[in-house]
Amino acid sequence: MSHAPDNAPHPFHGDPVFDLHVGGKLETVSRVALKGAEELSLAYTPGVARVCEAIAADPSMTQEYTWVPNVVAVITDGTAVLGLGDIGPAAAMPVMEGKAVLFKQFGGVDAVPICLDTTDTEEIIETVARLAPSFGGINLEDISAPRCFEIENRLKERLDIPVFHDDQHGTAVVALAALKNALKLTGRTPSSTRVVVSGAGAAGVAVARILLGAGIRDIAVLDRRGVLNSERSDLTDVKAALARETADNFGRSGTLADAMDGADVYIGVSGGTVPEEIVATMAPDAIIFGLANPTPEVHPDVAHKYARVVATGRSDFPNQINNVLCFPGIFRGAFDVHATKITEGMKLAAAEALAELVGDALAEDMIIPSPFDPRVGPAVSRAVADAARRDGVARK
Amino acid sequence: MSHAPDNAPHPFHGDPVFDLHVGGKLETVSRVALKGAEELSLAYTPGVARVCEAIAADPSMTQEYTWVPNVVAVITDGTAVLGLGDIGPAAAMPVMEGKAVLFKQFGGVDAVPICLDTTDTEEIIETVARLAPSFGGINLEDISAPRCFEIENRLKERLDIPVFHDDQHGTAVVALAALKNALKLTGRTPSSTRVVVSGAGAAGVAVARILLGAGIRDIAVLDRRGVLNSERSDLTDVKAALARETADNFGRSGTLADAMDGADVYIGVSGGTVPEEIVATMAPDAIIFGLANPTPEVHPDVAHKYARVVATGRSDFPNQINNVLCFPGIFRGAFDVHATKITEGMKLAAAEALAELVGDALAEDMIIPSPFDPRVGPAVSRAVADAARRDGVARK
Repeated sequence: MSHAPDNAPHPFHGDPVFDLHVGGKLETVSRVALKGAEELSLAYTPGVARVCEAIAADPSMTQEYTWVPNVVAVITDGTAVLGLGDIGPAAAMPVMEGKAVLFKQFGGVDAVPICLDTTDTEEIIETVARLAPSFGGINLEDISAPRCFEIENRLKERLDIPVFHDDQHGTAVVALAALKNALKLTGRTPSSTRVVVSGAGAAGVAVARILLGAGIRDIAVLDRRGVLNSERSDLTDVKAALARETADNFGRSGTLADAMDGADVYIGVSGGTVPEEIVATMAPDAIIFGLANPTPEVHPDVAHKYARVVATGRSDFPNQINNVLCFPGIFRGAFDVHATKITEGMKLAAAEALAELVGDALAEDMIIPSPFDPRVGPAVSRAVADAARRDGVARK
Repeated sequence: MSHAPDNAPHPFHGDPVFDLHVGGKLETVSRVALKGAEELSLAYTPGVARVCEAIAADPSMTQEYTWVPNVVAVITDGTAVLGLGDIGPAAAMPVMEGKAVLFKQFGGVDAVPICLDTTDTEEIIETVARLAPSFGGINLEDISAPRCFEIENRLKERLDIPVFHDDQHGTAVVALAALKNALKLTGRTPSSTRVVVSGAGAAGVAVARILLGAGIRDIAVLDRRGVLNSERSDLTDVKAALARETADNFGRSGTLADAMDGADVYIGVSGGTVPEEIVATMAPDAIIFGLANPTPEVHPDVAHKYARVVATGRSDFPNQINNVLCFPGIFRGAFDVHATKITEGMKLAAAEALAELVGDALAEDMIIPSPFDPRVGPAVSRAVADAARRDGVARK
């Protein structure tokens, strides 16, 4: 009766990654025991009818008597999955299941992976809005830019539950946390630090915005054609707005080589490889975060020749900048206070909590905690819940 | 970090039904252990990317390496919840969670409750179709007639996974199973049995149709205005089609009193109460199924005065006709062979398997097994899987 993997050998048999995935990574489990007719009549008909009536009379009872306030929908359209790009909804499922597993393990948050058979912005917005009564929060995942910006913004306006595009904000929060510690190590202040963000997709835009929120002013964001600034006529609305808040104010322009010359910090969220001769032009005690997976934009062996602090997205090098450090705790904190949204203040609080956890262990190869540090989830969720109360978005 | 119920006393504190519902009835759980960075790199990035690529290259790999083939979406719009009617999506959630719990306990089927914030037929169809890549099957639930018929039919045409409206077919399958045994006990054959189906909503229409499929011809289906037949000009398309296949062929017409006079079988799926003087006009050795919950259309104490076999939807009387006897096993069987749909043959096979399970225990107060009989799920799923193969809808 239980779900068992097929007996037939599968084509990738013996491969540890595929073996682990046989039958999927997630299941739904009952929180109540149904041993006989009496329990069935409590959990299901006729008893359940009274719970339904109580919620119909007072919808806030949903928070008390259903799983809704603890369950997040992990929603994708499969258009920007990891570094694989537009592989479609079916092929995106293993990532969404993995995300759901991480939500539970690191945040105690139930999570349902949903891969949508549409890539149309309006259809995605409508579909998610129609699903919303079933969930306590919406985690958007691996939806390509620039659609992801409009989808997130419109859903945030429309729904009274947290909506969070992890590719943007998860990356941004953890990068900011690591950068705070890297600045401390190298004796810099936000206002005197010059940053290059390479990549103006979901992650790049969000990283730049959270750095602005954290007081860093001199930022050059680059897409494939160079620094985003108002001299350019080829920018999307999102990029044009970002240009006015970043490079325009410091007259930054040109290519990656131009931007990197004398820069304090490089944050790569673009893929590709930065030529070593460009890396060599950065300021002394430089900070290099090459976050592309699996191949960082600057390999740590190269980065260490020119930089004092180096981070990547990989688990096999020190200083792994991994979204899993924040998204479970952010939703845990938001859910704990029944937050109606995730504010900029909540994201900044999460970054600050992560940075502070490093404490006295702070060193060039220890600017961010390990995802398996058991203090991470509780620290982030507490900081986020407190910030939600400060920002007036907590319902309890 | 784990999801804990609130400390504040809730207003229904001490009520066993509400106490059981605190925090909800369902959770998502990981099927894989993530103890450290190595396992994280298998279940999530970078390892998971290879599973995504394999599915992108061959979508049938979804069946092997994701939870999709074992998970059903339990979907409602909250318009016809139990006997409560149109209470909306939020208030419907406790029933959908309960259904999900039953799917797992009795069928080993993972299930996700989804309550939609729309009651528009086209919007529901579009929304479910967009969700479909995430699920191995769709269980429609508590959607009011006549929209439920069109929604189910259109989704069955459009999707290549099982779509099943339990209020229709679950009720029909279990009622047929019980009726088969009741006919055996009372020495009747399908072709010589005269049946009254009171109620022409989702359940009534489906009960009438499965009885036709099982060889019963003389059926009078009634809505609030009386017997459905072609003399009436007020019928919906669904009711008009049913009239041509039922009452028209035997000249049945008039009121419930007219239909019941001399009838062998009464199946109530309408609510309300049948006056005792009408019950008294049924044929000798009558069969009465009063399936409305919590109040049967004919109370068993009254029914037993005039009938030889009596069944209800309640667990506190013998012969409980409960959908839980079939929907977990039907989806288990369909999933086991990766069926593309649930055919009439699969439903009839489920009913036959349920009826046969009673075996030598057959008696007036034992025409259907208990939901807690551990043989039920395996017997139904095996019969359904075999029928799927016979009907050519099995993919393995």
